[in-house]
Amino acid sequence: MDHMARVSQEHLDARRRQILDGAARCFARNGFHATSMQDVLREVDLSAGAVYRYFSGKEELIEAIVTEVLGAIRGVYERAALQSPPPLPDELVARTLEHMRRERPAVTETGEWLFPRLMIQAWAETLRNPALSALLGEGVAQVTAAWAKVVTRYQEAGMMRDDIDPDAVARTLMATVQGFGAQYALFGGFPPEVLQAGMRGLLSMRETGDGTGDQSVEAG
Amino acid sequence: MDHMARVSQEHLDARRRQILDGAARCFARNGFHATSMQDVLREVDLSAGAVYRYFSGKEELIEAIVTEVLGAIRGVYERAALQSPPPLPDELVARTLEHMRRERPAVTETGEWLFPRLMIQAWAETLRNPALSALLGEGVAQVTAAWAKVVTRYQEAGMMRDDIDPDAVARTLMATVQGFGAQYALFGGFPPEVLQAGMRGLLSMRETGDGTGDQSVEAG
Repeated sequence: MDHMARVSQEHLDARRRQILDGAARCFARNGFHATSMQDVLREVDLSAGAVYRYFSGKEELIEAIVTEVLGAIRGVYERAALQSPPPLPDELVARTLEHMRRERPAVTETGEWLFPRLMIQAWAETLRNPALSALLGEGVAQVTAAWAKVVTRYQEAGMMRDDIDPDAVARTLMATVQGFGAQYALFGGFPPEVLQAGMRGLLSMRETGDGTGDQSVEAG
Repeated sequence: MDHMARVSQEHLDARRRQILDGAARCFARNGFHATSMQDVLREVDLSAGAVYRYFSGKEELIEAIVTEVLGAIRGVYERAALQSPPPLPDELVARTLEHMRRERPAVTETGEWLFPRLMIQAWAETLRNPALSALLGEGVAQVTAAWAKVVTRYQEAGMMRDDIDPDAVARTLMATVQGFGAQYALFGGFPPEVLQAGMRGLLSMRETGDGTGDQSVEAG
């Protein structure tokens, strides 16, 4: 009986995973608004009864997807904050992208990495959906807080000037990942390592000019 | 006659401006797809004849808006590349946001800064509109190239390690502005100065740990 119950739970989990992945592909391709539950049923090749057993509709599907993705990304920074010294930002943005790549839906039939598209579609829907906006806002605030812990560790270790709000740095780091995702979804054609290299360049900056702009290097 | 022609051109320009601003407000609020030309006519309070004299439809409107915005932003970096020493990235992202703020549509009736919303709506439409994708891709490539010129100046001046592709740094800088815009559109509630402060923190970073992650500071 224990064995049967366990197998059954695994089956339920796999089915739930299958539905979430199919819905994510639909949303990424066509957007949340233009996707119907019929589209999702066709995509996952299951009956309405099978799907509605797990999710009451599109709202619950997008909420589950957003919650799962943000939780996974937050974990990257929670773990990084425990490392001593904490990994530098160029390493962290690379880990973030790697993590997003591992997150489903990693690929479509044609091999395209759909996650960045899904991100933009979720943002567009968030602009007109107060419930999704609240959920995404809360999730992103938690991700920012986790990243701010890492920034605080930089400051405590003397690796970064400590007169700047860690939240501002955390938002800026998160912005690089979000903006990178947007570029990837819209234009593609470049490897994720580009962001890591670009961040490395920024971290190497030194002011050697005629004294203007000295605010960026006077501490640290 | 010269005088009349000049007044007439000013009038035409103002009318065009009025239509573009009204269309941008509509697109920002409801997205490109859900906005009809009727909505635009109502927003600008002009007849169909008056509007179609300038723009053949929604496609031409969004293309004109995207072209105008990207051209303005590119100008920020073109000018920065001529300065010696070039302004540091924290100053440049601040200038970019300031420029975007000055760009119409600066506000709605309620005082909300609509530009970041417009950006996300334009991205969502770009995902399914090949013509817009080509236009935006070309415009963003020009903006990146302009920013890469500034990065090359950093490297020439010994302000940044020079073994990193300027294009990668330019994309990363652009990503911070894009990601910041997304955060602002989705959650609001923080001043644009946050990005400048966060960038300042990143630029101040020094590695003082136990030797891991040394790739970010070995040059410069």
